[in-house]
Amino acid sequence: MKRPNTGEKSLKLHKKLKGKISITSKTPVRDMKDLSLVYTPGVGAVSSFLAKHKERVGEYTMQGNTVAIVSDGSAVLGLGNIGPEAALPVMEGKALLFKQFANIDAVPIVLNTQDVDEIVSVVRAISPGFAGVNLEDISAPRCFEIEARLKKELPIPVMHDDQHGTAVVILAGLINALKVAKKGMGSIKLVISGAGAAGTALANLLKQAGVGDVLVVDSKGILSKSRKDLSFVKKDLTKKTNKSNISGSLSDALLGADVFVGVSVPNILKAHMVKKMAKDPIIFALSNPVPEIMPDTALLAGAFIVATGRSDFPNQLNNALAFPGIFRGALDHKVENITDEMKLRAAYAIARLVSKPTRTNIVPTIFDKRLVKSISRSII
Amino acid sequence: MKRPNTGEKSLKLHKKLKGKISITSKTPVRDMKDLSLVYTPGVGAVSSFLAKHKERVGEYTMQGNTVAIVSDGSAVLGLGNIGPEAALPVMEGKALLFKQFANIDAVPIVLNTQDVDEIVSVVRAISPGFAGVNLEDISAPRCFEIEARLKKELPIPVMHDDQHGTAVVILAGLINALKVAKKGMGSIKLVISGAGAAGTALANLLKQAGVGDVLVVDSKGILSKSRKDLSFVKKDLTKKTNKSNISGSLSDALLGADVFVGVSVPNILKAHMVKKMAKDPIIFALSNPVPEIMPDTALLAGAFIVATGRSDFPNQLNNALAFPGIFRGALDHKVENITDEMKLRAAYAIARLVSKPTRTNIVPTIFDKRLVKSISRSII
Repeated sequence: MKRPNTGEKSLKLHKKLKGKISITSKTPVRDMKDLSLVYTPGVGAVSSFLAKHKERVGEYTMQGNTVAIVSDGSAVLGLGNIGPEAALPVMEGKALLFKQFANIDAVPIVLNTQDVDEIVSVVRAISPGFAGVNLEDISAPRCFEIEARLKKELPIPVMHDDQHGTAVVILAGLINALKVAKKGMGSIKLVISGAGAAGTALANLLKQAGVGDVLVVDSKGILSKSRKDLSFVKKDLTKKTNKSNISGSLSDALLGADVFVGVSVPNILKAHMVKKMAKDPIIFALSNPVPEIMPDTALLAGAFIVATGRSDFPNQLNNALAFPGIFRGALDHKVENITDEMKLRAAYAIARLVSKPTRTNIVPTIFDKRLVKSISRSII
Repeated sequence: MKRPNTGEKSLKLHKKLKGKISITSKTPVRDMKDLSLVYTPGVGAVSSFLAKHKERVGEYTMQGNTVAIVSDGSAVLGLGNIGPEAALPVMEGKALLFKQFANIDAVPIVLNTQDVDEIVSVVRAISPGFAGVNLEDISAPRCFEIEARLKKELPIPVMHDDQHGTAVVILAGLINALKVAKKGMGSIKLVISGAGAAGTALANLLKQAGVGDVLVVDSKGILSKSRKDLSFVKKDLTKKTNKSNISGSLSDALLGADVFVGVSVPNILKAHMVKKMAKDPIIFALSNPVPEIMPDTALLAGAFIVATGRSDFPNQLNNALAFPGIFRGALDHKVENITDEMKLRAAYAIARLVSKPTRTNIVPTIFDKRLVKSISRSII
């Protein structure tokens, strides 16, 4: 008999549960007296009060602890542009993690528009009921403009997790991997494969973190000032990365590099490329479920530390390490904007939880009870 | 010592609870195995499946049991245009009732726009995650256009509860009140005070129910074809109501009338007007918390049956009698449009639950366990 795989099991579980989250009442309504307090006429006093003090809505309603998880379904997992209905199970999963790890009430909002202006309008329109917005699985380059405009327009924290959650977790892993490899942040050369949402945010955060030289490689090669085919966002990256303005392929970029970070496509990193990297190379192959290089291949080629996005190998770099704590901190400390400074502190907070990092243990697991509190505290 | 009133108690309770509803997980995430089923990689199978079969989203996600409660805060309770933050406690209360009475997961969505086009766009954009839309506390006449356009554009049921929930409950009360008064639906003359959301929907539904003659009175008098100051919606009402095309005041309208229904403003109905109504007049004074006439005054003036919106008098006509069952039925039977036919059946289903109506018992209480199931069944 064939054993059902994870996908089959998951389909079955989803069909049984009919969704992974539900709404529950915090207080029972047993009789007219209860009703008169939670609904009319009593609730009128709360509405009257908030009409005069709308800034206090979070103290009297769910708003203060509620985050919208907004997706247009344009870049879902590795599946691409599969639309809002197909994105919903992922957003519900995320809401479940928000609740379980950070006790945040998160509401999936999936959109049947992929127009930048319309997405900005919609999120702005629904924002009064939320204390934060987690943008999710929105494709580049639209995700950059959507996030930038919403951050500017809304008085609540807005974060595109595919960009910044990913970047924070990778930086956390890097901090500890460099400790194990005895290399300094300022002297390394690091190559990012992938110039989408994650690659772009990562390049920016790593420069803030003081990484010596960062090279970003897209499907056409190294991003450099010589390239004439670059979008506005990629052109901007060439100002912060690629110190020596070199051109070439991923293979060229990796010559003598200390770190490879893949946020791109399966199997793009070959053994011969790893062999040409600097001594004790660090490989983060995060394409999921099939990484840029399989860990055993990388190790055979001389990799010193290998991390993936998968739970069946050591060193899993998972977004879920960061976003619950970042939002918990932002809500608790009434942060209006999640800044680079906060992301750096969050990454160091995650890294610090591994007191003695080793080649196979550079980050805590997402089930580490200290995680959310440590990140949340670091946010202030 | 002063005893705290309902409003004070409600404020205190809201501050303590910080919101009346929360998100809960339907399944725990204890370890990597659980995580791999509810989130990546397992959830990828669910997303892939739904990418090909988006019409089945309700079977694999919360969508099938989830309703959006949408308000722009423009007509909240009797408080008027107090905005989205101040509307939120009411929407949360409604979500709590949806859950408690009909086991529906309802999500409050409060909007910081009051523009008709934008509200329609926003609700359309967020609709893929919901199996129904309950519009709430949106002022007339905008509510008519918003509801009509959304009903046309969306493949899921959309209902403005202030219109139709109210109309259904009033009709349910009327059915039994007429039984007690031994009057026939087709032979009565009924006067509606108020030509807003509730009054308009009520006039339409009562005509469908076969009420002999309906007169609608707004702040300027009886709606008649002779009036030159009428909006499109009110002009439309003059085609269906006021058979003899009479003009005049509320007092004129009530001469010989069998039923008064107030969905308007406090204290507008005077004892001398009740005295000029037909024998055994029925008075539904639903302005809340202060009715169009106080029950004792109405009874002294000769009223045969009096109903209000309040829980401290007999015959409470409360929206919560109808909306949980109507949406339960619409979701269970995959109804795309809540039709007049369904509303009529819902009203009769509510009325039937009182086997022997009396002058002080024309409708069941909202705690009647049979209520939601009876209405839900009647919807098909």
